[in-house]
Amino acid sequence: MQYPKGKLIAIGGAEDKGTDLEAGEINRNNLNFFELGILRRVVEEAGGIDARIEVITTASTIPYEVGDNYMNAFGKIGCTNIGVLHIRNRQDTANPEFLERIKTCNAVMFSGGNQMRLSVTDGGTDFLAILKKRYQEETGFVVAGTSAGAMAMSKTMIYEGNAARAYLKGEVKMTTGLGFIDNVIIDSHFEKRGRFVRLTQAVATNPSCIGIGLGEDTGMLITEGNKMEAIGSGLVIIIDGHEMMHSNIADIPDGNPISIENLRVHFCEKGNGYMVKERKFLMEAKDGALIKKQVHVE
Amino acid sequence: MQYPKGKLIAIGGAEDKGTDLEAGEINRNNLNFFELGILRRVVEEAGGIDARIEVITTASTIPYEVGDNYMNAFGKIGCTNIGVLHIRNRQDTANPEFLERIKTCNAVMFSGGNQMRLSVTDGGTDFLAILKKRYQEETGFVVAGTSAGAMAMSKTMIYEGNAARAYLKGEVKMTTGLGFIDNVIIDSHFEKRGRFVRLTQAVATNPSCIGIGLGEDTGMLITEGNKMEAIGSGLVIIIDGHEMMHSNIADIPDGNPISIENLRVHFCEKGNGYMVKERKFLMEAKDGALIKKQVHVE
Repeated sequence: MQYPKGKLIAIGGAEDKGTDLEAGEINRNNLNFFELGILRRVVEEAGGIDARIEVITTASTIPYEVGDNYMNAFGKIGCTNIGVLHIRNRQDTANPEFLERIKTCNAVMFSGGNQMRLSVTDGGTDFLAILKKRYQEETGFVVAGTSAGAMAMSKTMIYEGNAARAYLKGEVKMTTGLGFIDNVIIDSHFEKRGRFVRLTQAVATNPSCIGIGLGEDTGMLITEGNKMEAIGSGLVIIIDGHEMMHSNIADIPDGNPISIENLRVHFCEKGNGYMVKERKFLMEAKDGALIKKQVHVE
Repeated sequence: MQYPKGKLIAIGGAEDKGTDLEAGEINRNNLNFFELGILRRVVEEAGGIDARIEVITTASTIPYEVGDNYMNAFGKIGCTNIGVLHIRNRQDTANPEFLERIKTCNAVMFSGGNQMRLSVTDGGTDFLAILKKRYQEETGFVVAGTSAGAMAMSKTMIYEGNAARAYLKGEVKMTTGLGFIDNVIIDSHFEKRGRFVRLTQAVATNPSCIGIGLGEDTGMLITEGNKMEAIGSGLVIIIDGHEMMHSNIADIPDGNPISIENLRVHFCEKGNGYMVKERKFLMEAKDGALIKKQVHVE
């Protein structure tokens, strides 16, 4: 199969409006990551401030607030052509106006919320098929997503799993995501919510997949469905289970601790990268001149 | 140097009375791990229910409550000979009665609290020298510790580091622990507090050390200063940085995200083990018949 010509931008989240937080989380965060360049990068990849970007609020339970936040955020960057698609259910995905808009925009941005709302609403729809076809065939088409919107990009998706109990088999619940990319599992809010063990359990039971743990205000720009470049102010943690030796996970009942020998782990900061198929850490993800436009903000 | 003849039992903590909790932690836990066999294992290793075990409450800011809790806990196991040493400062370490008691007991148990209280109170004292000499020379002598009491066992010790900010250089603070064991760094409450990144930063800056992340109600029994057997109901996570390739950590200013290529990570459940010098995961840590006495409690 030809590699996809479009780009994915998976963002670890920092606003997360409308998400049910895990126990231990105190505050909902405000939409603050765009200051540090991630939304600006989305805009650049989509073609600049005149690009048409459609924000898809499906994952959120407070879509109007989320939509307004993105309008404001993109507005501050100088964007003039942002739309919001409040797709709440499968019927909405067939709305001819919405279908027309996703056929003609330069980028879509999936908001945060609950990733299962995305897979259940969009799975198997023409709406999703159009997005996937455009992503596959059109150079310059961008599919961005934050938090739940990032987690839903992969075919194998975590939909639930309390971080503190994730060392127990069965506590990390998997399903099928939107499937823009195979062979990875994406997790979000990674350091803040202490999700290393959660993503590791997902990788241990799906060892063909590379775990991509996105920190807050941090993302991965993915080109050719394979080459990743870390963007933003935090870390992307890569978990590679291909060299896994002993693991008890297939043999123990649910509720017991999982054991695993030999994971390979990398920490990527901005500018580092990773090649999924080659399972290779990149010190410098040379994805063209855009890297140089990224500016450190203290 | 001869290997130490005594044993260490480092426990990830589950009671933690007197500890300042990180932001995001909601409740202080109660002393509940002994039900699951860890304290029982300490007693067995110390010689049985008649063994003299001295509980050292130095790390805690509520030593009397902690001491009483341990008296009750060991009492429930059937122990008849438990003492509590309330060593609050360096003067106390020279108390002749205390020195006599640590010369004659079968085991000591360092409570949780603040690990720097242990290193600052005991560092360089005769009190510590006696314990280290006994640990080095006497077969059957047991040094146990939970939470801060486990973290202080190593020479290289984390004394502070907020888990959610631990991806930034300088956020993980290190000092010298009691030094019963070299070449490891021990962290506690590992999954519950999401400390993978914190311990990784410690390992990245001390790559001769293996990171030992102890879950709650979980411990490592360490023999010959090298061979580890996981005990308890949770996970011990091993972080090995010896094969680290690229890292930016020496070159960036404090406050910037750390990058690391190529960590090796293992998850050990009860009965699994690890050899520190050999850097080897063990499916079965065959440390004699005691393993078989461990019983799963649902």
